[in-house]
Amino acid sequence: MIANGNNHFVDTPWTDRFALRAEGLTSSVIRELLKLTQDPEVISFAGGLPAPEVFPLEEIEAACHKVLAEQGTKALQYSTTEGFLPLRELLVRRMGRYGIHVSPANVLITSGSQQALDLIGKLLINSGDRLLVEAPTYLGALQAFNAYQARYLKVPLDADGMRVDLLEEELRSGPKFVYVLPNFHNPAGTTLPLERRQRIVELASHYGVPILEDDPYGQLRYEGEHLPPLLEIDSEYHGAAAASGPFRGGVIYLSTFSKTLAPGLRVAWVVAPEDVIFRLVQMKQGSDLHTSTFDQMVAYETARNGFLDEHVKKIREVYGVRRQAMLNALERHMPLGVEWTRPQGGLFLWLTLPQGLDSATILEEAVRAKVAFVPGRAFFPGKGGERSMRLNFSYCTPEVIEEGIRRLAEVVDRALVGSAVPVAG
Amino acid sequence: MIANGNNHFVDTPWTDRFALRAEGLTSSVIRELLKLTQDPEVISFAGGLPAPEVFPLEEIEAACHKVLAEQGTKALQYSTTEGFLPLRELLVRRMGRYGIHVSPANVLITSGSQQALDLIGKLLINSGDRLLVEAPTYLGALQAFNAYQARYLKVPLDADGMRVDLLEEELRSGPKFVYVLPNFHNPAGTTLPLERRQRIVELASHYGVPILEDDPYGQLRYEGEHLPPLLEIDSEYHGAAAASGPFRGGVIYLSTFSKTLAPGLRVAWVVAPEDVIFRLVQMKQGSDLHTSTFDQMVAYETARNGFLDEHVKKIREVYGVRRQAMLNALERHMPLGVEWTRPQGGLFLWLTLPQGLDSATILEEAVRAKVAFVPGRAFFPGKGGERSMRLNFSYCTPEVIEEGIRRLAEVVDRALVGSAVPVAG
Repeated sequence: MIANGNNHFVDTPWTDRFALRAEGLTSSVIRELLKLTQDPEVISFAGGLPAPEVFPLEEIEAACHKVLAEQGTKALQYSTTEGFLPLRELLVRRMGRYGIHVSPANVLITSGSQQALDLIGKLLINSGDRLLVEAPTYLGALQAFNAYQARYLKVPLDADGMRVDLLEEELRSGPKFVYVLPNFHNPAGTTLPLERRQRIVELASHYGVPILEDDPYGQLRYEGEHLPPLLEIDSEYHGAAAASGPFRGGVIYLSTFSKTLAPGLRVAWVVAPEDVIFRLVQMKQGSDLHTSTFDQMVAYETARNGFLDEHVKKIREVYGVRRQAMLNALERHMPLGVEWTRPQGGLFLWLTLPQGLDSATILEEAVRAKVAFVPGRAFFPGKGGERSMRLNFSYCTPEVIEEGIRRLAEVVDRALVGSAVPVAG
Repeated sequence: MIANGNNHFVDTPWTDRFALRAEGLTSSVIRELLKLTQDPEVISFAGGLPAPEVFPLEEIEAACHKVLAEQGTKALQYSTTEGFLPLRELLVRRMGRYGIHVSPANVLITSGSQQALDLIGKLLINSGDRLLVEAPTYLGALQAFNAYQARYLKVPLDADGMRVDLLEEELRSGPKFVYVLPNFHNPAGTTLPLERRQRIVELASHYGVPILEDDPYGQLRYEGEHLPPLLEIDSEYHGAAAASGPFRGGVIYLSTFSKTLAPGLRVAWVVAPEDVIFRLVQMKQGSDLHTSTFDQMVAYETARNGFLDEHVKKIREVYGVRRQAMLNALERHMPLGVEWTRPQGGLFLWLTLPQGLDSATILEEAVRAKVAFVPGRAFFPGKGGERSMRLNFSYCTPEVIEEGIRRLAEVVDRALVGSAVPVAG
């Protein structure tokens, strides 16, 4: 028989008591920064938030009403892991217009793209596996993959995205997959030209390495022409074998409604060969059974009948203006030696400070001056990005962007002066 | 330079090409059975579906309207991983009435309890770790834990739930945690008496093994008195140390709105010490960023102002009648030698066939006779449950239950006769 409570036990934190795993999860930068943006005085270029002004509130309310009135008990009930079939069919039709020819059996609905990254990590990554990523790359992907003890091979970016001239060497080391953001890269704002896309597909296919293509912003292009996704290029590359039979190929493709409808609904999707979808469905079943039936049906009702096309046009206009406002403000305010990318779409640009400055140090000063961004090092596995930062241009109005960049430029200016003055004594 | 498409590559399934992991995930029994229930002619006792008649459609529609009208841009935007604060506060107040005294910092909102099981697996389980589970136990938990290559120690159940007289021996082997369903067990329908609850807490504390308490149905009691959750007993057991300071203790507690509001919304929660919540938040951030903001706010608006209490009363009435209908029908139709549990609440009872019969074989016959259930072996890691089955009584009306049990009893009758006839020749 055991006497009395064991107070040593209860006073020891679980972390020590039960050896909780902490295997190098990227420190919760996104979360802490999301909190920061809740101070109304801070102008935040840090989040990846869509502009709330473009949320289709009325249409979503009408969709809620319709779904509950016509199929209420279905919308509130458990549903299949694969996702709401009419939604998957709608996605198949829409993607068909962008060169992606698949069937609903190739589509799995996920709870945001973050879940797709997690499920793919769960499916493909064994502890210690190396993944080939761009440097910088999407922070949320690193968080998802780190949980499975991934290691990384890195290919740097230039103004046109991944340096494909450096890709083959890394592919030779046998990465588990290549993770690429071809359009309006998060965080870099770069877009891969057609030739680079072709070369990536060609090389990955040659070395038998699958490609994970993350395309959250593909429809949010403000200048230039639409370029085919790697999924389409891969499918053409493999020619008739792929075209005649079921969809195969070496690419898993991700996209989402978070940037075209509303991120609060957490509705995204994966496109992959059927055998991959089958395994991902098993993984998802163990992870959350299925994505909110209600949110899927509301997203479907909102998106259908051409509304999404109209709505995307509106978003493009609003964000296009904001992107230009940020580019203009940077041109106007930033001191010589500061450089930035000129994204053709998406939500972000990438700014690099002159030699000798550190963006993490600048952030502390910037927050005091009531402006925020994400320091570049958050987007690198291991070292990198010390002089860079990610700036979001979708969330703030043009006037606020102007003021925020003015504040930021002042901070950079002061830091430059500080670093240029020789230390006295 | 690489010539032409590599057709061997594209013709090989991913499963072989990229060595997709398949580490003994329980075959997708739930999913396949959910599909089965879509045949309108089959009377399904297989799912764990709430009755759609009790979904509070009007209240949810009113909540959608209110949320979108008053806080629409917030509801559709990204939100913090921890979950919507007013919802966590409401849960803290409600749980307080059931003896669970914690603060919102001890609560994480998850995308259904399934996600809580997955996150806890991700946090605590290293490949090969042994978990102590009841036999039988919840199938979804096995699915979640199998993904992290868990192994299992098993303690059998009797009519009062876990055989605590067999617990200590298993605890000595050092399991990572003990997974328990104290109320109206899924699948067994059993409820742990107070003394067994106390003994589990005492033993787990003595051996320094955390308890994972899964309580989806705690409020759905149709007879007998409410019993304190292990979380409360553990907290009292550790006495003043726990009561005066922040909530600690050795129990992680799970519950959900899936059975009291609507499963389609995927809103559930974890209660744990703050340092555990902190790590779970990191895990969830990498898994799906956050649970649908909209669904959380709609659940909050629906549940508040006392509606949930009224609604739970209504559910109790409806399900209490159905439980009785199933017990009566079993009494009326089942042949001698068939046994079943008499649950005081919840959604399920557990039926055991006479020696010589196999519930998986019976299922094939049953489906032909247009009635379905889950064979017992699905709820055991390894061997077990061959003669048993789980029957759900929440989804079908009393009339349908009567007819379904009649069909099932006929199938069992025939099988009994079949097994009794000596094989000729």
